[in-house]
Amino acid sequence: MSILDASPKLRLGFVGGGVGSQIGPVHRHAATLDGNYDIVAGVLSTTPERNRESARKYGIAGERLYGSYEEMAQKESARPDGIEVVVIVTPSNSHAEISKTFLRHGIHVICDKPMTINLPDAMDVLAATRKANCVYAVTYGFSAYPMIREARARVRGGEIGTVRLVQAEFALGYGTLPVEKTGHKQAVWQTDPKFAGQIGVVGNLGTHIHHLARFITGHEITSIAADLSTSVPDRKIFDNAHIMARFDNGARGVLWASMIAAANAFGLRIRVYGDKGSIEWAHEDSEELQIRPVSGPPLLVRRGEAWTTDACKRVSRIRSYHPEGYLAAFANLYNDVAEVIQARKAGVAPDPHAYDYPSVEDGVLGIAFSEAALESNERGSAWVDTPTSILK
Amino acid sequence: MSILDASPKLRLGFVGGGVGSQIGPVHRHAATLDGNYDIVAGVLSTTPERNRESARKYGIAGERLYGSYEEMAQKESARPDGIEVVVIVTPSNSHAEISKTFLRHGIHVICDKPMTINLPDAMDVLAATRKANCVYAVTYGFSAYPMIREARARVRGGEIGTVRLVQAEFALGYGTLPVEKTGHKQAVWQTDPKFAGQIGVVGNLGTHIHHLARFITGHEITSIAADLSTSVPDRKIFDNAHIMARFDNGARGVLWASMIAAANAFGLRIRVYGDKGSIEWAHEDSEELQIRPVSGPPLLVRRGEAWTTDACKRVSRIRSYHPEGYLAAFANLYNDVAEVIQARKAGVAPDPHAYDYPSVEDGVLGIAFSEAALESNERGSAWVDTPTSILK
Amino acid sequence: MSILDASPKLRLGFVGGGVGSQIGPVHRHAATLDGNYDIVAGVLSTTPERNRESARKYGIAGERLYGSYEEMAQKESARPDGIEVVVIVTPSNSHAEISKTFLRHGIHVICDKPMTINLPDAMDVLAATRKANCVYAVTYGFSAYPMIREARARVRGGEIGTVRLVQAEFALGYGTLPVEKTGHKQAVWQTDPKFAGQIGVVGNLGTHIHHLARFITGHEITSIAADLSTSVPDRKIFDNAHIMARFDNGARGVLWASMIAAANAFGLRIRVYGDKGSIEWAHEDSEELQIRPVSGPPLLVRRGEAWTTDACKRVSRIRSYHPEGYLAAFANLYNDVAEVIQARKAGVAPDPHAYDYPSVEDGVLGIAFSEAALESNERGSAWVDTPTSILK
Amino acid sequence: MSILDASPKLRLGFVGGGVGSQIGPVHRHAATLDGNYDIVAGVLSTTPERNRESARKYGIAGERLYGSYEEMAQKESARPDGIEVVVIVTPSNSHAEISKTFLRHGIHVICDKPMTINLPDAMDVLAATRKANCVYAVTYGFSAYPMIREARARVRGGEIGTVRLVQAEFALGYGTLPVEKTGHKQAVWQTDPKFAGQIGVVGNLGTHIHHLARFITGHEITSIAADLSTSVPDRKIFDNAHIMARFDNGARGVLWASMIAAANAFGLRIRVYGDKGSIEWAHEDSEELQIRPVSGPPLLVRRGEAWTTDACKRVSRIRSYHPEGYLAAFANLYNDVAEVIQARKAGVAPDPHAYDYPSVEDGVLGIAFSEAALESNERGSAWVDTPTSILK
Repeated sequence: MSILDASPKLRLGFVGGGVGSQIGPVHRHAATLDGNYDIVAGVLSTTPERNRESARKYGIAGERLYGSYEEMAQKESARPDGIEVVVIVTPSNSHAEISKTFLRHGIHVICDKPMTINLPDAMDVLAATRKANCVYAVTYGFSAYPMIREARARVRGGEIGTVRLVQAEFALGYGTLPVEKTGHKQAVWQTDPKFAGQIGVVGNLGTHIHHLARFITGHEITSIAADLSTSVPDRKIFDNAHIMARFDNGARGVLWASMIAAANAFGLRIRVYGDKGSIEWAHEDSEELQIRPVSGPPLLVRRGEAWTTDACKRVSRIRSYHPEGYLAAFANLYNDVAEVIQARKAGVAPDPHAYDYPSVEDGVLGIAFSEAALESNERGSAWVDTPTSILK
Repeated sequence: MSILDASPKLRLGFVGGGVGSQIGPVHRHAATLDGNYDIVAGVLSTTPERNRESARKYGIAGERLYGSYEEMAQKESARPDGIEVVVIVTPSNSHAEISKTFLRHGIHVICDKPMTINLPDAMDVLAATRKANCVYAVTYGFSAYPMIREARARVRGGEIGTVRLVQAEFALGYGTLPVEKTGHKQAVWQTDPKFAGQIGVVGNLGTHIHHLARFITGHEITSIAADLSTSVPDRKIFDNAHIMARFDNGARGVLWASMIAAANAFGLRIRVYGDKGSIEWAHEDSEELQIRPVSGPPLLVRRGEAWTTDACKRVSRIRSYHPEGYLAAFANLYNDVAEVIQARKAGVAPDPHAYDYPSVEDGVLGIAFSEAALESNERGSAWVDTPTSILK
Repeated sequence: MSILDASPKLRLGFVGGGVGSQIGPVHRHAATLDGNYDIVAGVLSTTPERNRESARKYGIAGERLYGSYEEMAQKESARPDGIEVVVIVTPSNSHAEISKTFLRHGIHVICDKPMTINLPDAMDVLAATRKANCVYAVTYGFSAYPMIREARARVRGGEIGTVRLVQAEFALGYGTLPVEKTGHKQAVWQTDPKFAGQIGVVGNLGTHIHHLARFITGHEITSIAADLSTSVPDRKIFDNAHIMARFDNGARGVLWASMIAAANAFGLRIRVYGDKGSIEWAHEDSEELQIRPVSGPPLLVRRGEAWTTDACKRVSRIRSYHPEGYLAAFANLYNDVAEVIQARKAGVAPDPHAYDYPSVEDGVLGIAFSEAALESNERGSAWVDTPTSILK
Repeated sequence: MSILDASPKLRLGFVGGGVGSQIGPVHRHAATLDGNYDIVAGVLSTTPERNRESARKYGIAGERLYGSYEEMAQKESARPDGIEVVVIVTPSNSHAEISKTFLRHGIHVICDKPMTINLPDAMDVLAATRKANCVYAVTYGFSAYPMIREARARVRGGEIGTVRLVQAEFALGYGTLPVEKTGHKQAVWQTDPKFAGQIGVVGNLGTHIHHLARFITGHEITSIAADLSTSVPDRKIFDNAHIMARFDNGARGVLWASMIAAANAFGLRIRVYGDKGSIEWAHEDSEELQIRPVSGPPLLVRRGEAWTTDACKRVSRIRSYHPEGYLAAFANLYNDVAEVIQARKAGVAPDPHAYDYPSVEDGVLGIAFSEAALESNERGSAWVDTPTSILK
């Protein structure tokens, strides 16, 4: 029996994610899908009426619905049954302050990506996390798909040999038209530097594939050369990023992040090539992983089958050929975090795979990568280092 | 605001579905995903220890964990806060008795498929449901995929013209090897006539596509000619069914249900051809619907897009290109049932689409279809009528 | 060096296939693609002007362009450099007479499918072929795709174990609208019983999959139960056929042939399931074969790769990942025939794989299958035998 | 009637392409598929015996089989029935000299790609072509696929609006292992700078996508930033190229050419994004073009359908859903060239689409692009201009 089955649910609070939020419901479904969390507190909206309406949806009782996150952090940490974990799903520019506030009260954090909108903020959050000795997860949700876990296990296990090339893309079309001019909230958040920072599409989409590339291969990106551009008139951030990358073992790659890939479907794909074969995963076929050895025909490995790795089986709920989807993948992250926290509370070691959730260090490196892209672009696509030494 | 958002959660009980169950967790996830039900009571296993262990997983308090469904029905109906709905996920042969027991106490029923293992039982359940004036749903879960709802809306809306052909298949490979000899529980349930009835693979898989064909086209299957066979030595039920069908408007079709389609992936596919075009949906690509007009290039319509119908939008949670998967589809059925019940309680009309859940009548017709297949097969694949008049 | 490389080209004549013909150019390309035939004579059209115009396209000199096939057969057989092989691409109802005429003169025949429009004619052609001791090929072109040859080699080699199920379909949409009313020549040929016979869509499309099923599995279809129908008003032939089948080893199958599968793409697909795995080939992805063992992940085998069988390599021209297409597949049939004839002339044995072309016996069985479908349909879809004993 | 149907075949000679050649047979099939050329002369191999053996395969009479291309150019140009067009399929380093030799004799040239291995050579060929006033085609064969022609017509026709992004890749795995060490001829030709030049994989594969990007969009690439690398030990050329590109209208792109994309299938794909939608074509599905408008569901357009453009219909032979494949695409180039030459001879204008074959100017720009990639790579991926002004 897993430690999760043996433990009472973790008490969870939400900051943001109320009615009208796009990503909020994903977090809510993910948190509750497997019964490992109770959502008990929150400040779901800055508009009081919407805050109350959202609380009903979340099942949060009136006395634990707060008007500000500061109030929530203070009062919850004073309760014996206060929240143990907080989820932050507010505009990116506010992540750092909110994170630090809860960390100061010893509350674990699950923060939407990007973790912050600049590197100094990210370093602050890192320091605060370490000081608080809390669990801090950044929700790069795609990394929790069973077949991404399978890819990681196989690539790191040597199945395709030495990694030589990584081609990753997250290219969507939601910003093809000047959507920010319509006043659409998410569009404004993602295109106004005030909310999204200068890192724009690199921070918002590029960090996902930066994480996936590292997560699957086990290799760090050590330098990049970027060409950033803005195609939509009057847009204030870069809406497309072409980034050439070099990895710590000499491998090369291209990362493409875009919000103007008009009418692209799914848009997320990663391919890794080694000297013995290659693997490919696409969001469009999230339940399958292509494995292509040099020495024989390509294989399709699918979730739920006997020949998947333990890393995949661990995050698989239902039988094969019944797609689990994005909500279930997102829930895997929540479960990983829950397992690590519960194990801490119990004074035992969690399943090592539970540490596969994206950590605060992963968050920092994503922001560093994003800023390096800005710098490279300013310097005519010159190669800019992205050392992991900043984590020390 | 939907009536679901405005109402307290429905109190739900489970019969079956405990630890080790394959479909139980699907029902549990589906019931809780959107916060419309509270699981408060159950008899989850016939083994006391496993019953208790499962209760913890389901979050059911000790005093509402029962030793038998009869006890549960009686005690829950006596409580002011007793369950309003029961979920039945036991072997098929027990569905009828359990259903009737809860219906007698005025408790709504959500029953796994097939509803029963023979037609007399099905007629009994129908009568009991009508007498009790309860909601009764059979979980043909695939019918709740957003793109199946989209297909239904478009086909019934005339987009492909008069329906001429229906090709439907649900062919899996789980019974390719003599799995029942290994003692695997689900395998035994599905291959022992005592549990699965004589209707075997027709009841277990064929009823899904029988329902989908009717659901999408709005036409009833009026007669069939079937060739049933058993390929695995010593197997006691038919493990493959080829069924030719005729519809009430003269359309023809083939339905193929199999558990020996070795290594088939997904295996569920339906295609409908009219005089103006055709549609195709496959479980493998559950988020998309192919629409092929005679007069122009084929289109792909995907969940979450602006041009989907209201029927599709109503059951879509998250943005496009983030696959919702099977659990979410299953949850759509639960939500439909909840909406109908809540509307009854409030004395208002639910969204008409809420009635899209598979009803007891759909359950009866599925069993009638299965028995007709047996009869046709015995009579050398002669055509056998499957009239809807049995519902009167 | 192959005997084809060492031999002068075979002299080839055409009956039919002139300007405006749909299938004529396919035969012409196929005959000339690999340099194994010289087209030297023909009667390409019954219209003199069109006959002359077509001759220029085919490169046929004036004195060997004839006004009738009888004249052609007589004069060519009298020449020392007369044709050795004739191609017949006329309406199906004329195939038997033309075939017999050329066979009487000892000329080998390549005949478009269906070989004839009824069984007595087919038996006549069989007798004439045997008497003349000529090579007679029926152009079921799909059977010459490299990956169909691969499928045959693997299935017959036991890779999927004992064959249990065969699901084959050739369903196109060209007859969805009443095309015959527009006077379109091919449409008239395929829908007027005078040209197409009563066997209609079964003869035209069904024989293709009848052949593929036998070709790949090595098992004969021994009885069938058919449901034939006509959906388009005033159409004089059956435009859809659903056929349940039983094979000589007890395997079951469904064959679906249709010309009203509105807007279907490609439409040709065959799946074979055994007790150890399954294979699938679809015309849409003609360069690949799915192989799905029960015991491991599915594989994709593609033309041109090192791990394909000799049967596949033999009919593969260019490197992998450059699709060869339908014309090249069709040319494979022509090459097989050429190899057998050249080997006969040289008094040596051809590569055994050269006998993979569809023979007059295959042609006869296709017509017998088609007539059995008519009989079954008339008898309420009763099972009708299709014995191979008619070949004796 | 096309001018091709009304004209005698063009007399064609081959330099290279004999037995053992990989691309030679493709040219031979392409030249003869539609009956627009007669292969009458050649020097097919430098080995006399292989030369003679190849001549038999090509059907070249003994007296027109030459020992050297110089002899062939001289003697053929002296004959009244001498060749009108020469095909050059020798190692890339010899293209320039051979081209200039035949051009001096007024013989049109069809040259395999890359046209030369450095820019000075390419400029020489350009000058020679202009001086001779000959037709000169470079066989970027993919550009002649019907669906690439369709893509060009639609993108240039404005269907996706202003082009913003181009993502093109041609990534194969044939060089994953150190194949050159096995002595394999093609491997040596492609990896030894003596034969392939320094431009290596950029010249060999990159020029294909450089051409496709320009061909489809109508926009020139004006500058690039390249990261070239060599992964296989001891390899003497770059075996992978990541190239960021800027187009004359401000559009951005990435071109990826690789010979170490281990076990990649097909590997050729191009996507173009505009402000109104996008298109995608992949070699794997060469018969279809995805068209994705921003304002509605994506469409699949396939060869042979009524709604394809004239540019597509013109190069389509057989009916839809019977894939024509690579040989037929290659033949389209040969037919375009034939049509332009025949029109010149007749003193009339050819179909404007006949000019869609890749010209000597296209060849020059490909080499200029390749050299710019080398220069950028040497300069730390700095942006390097690739002006079309070199054509003046």
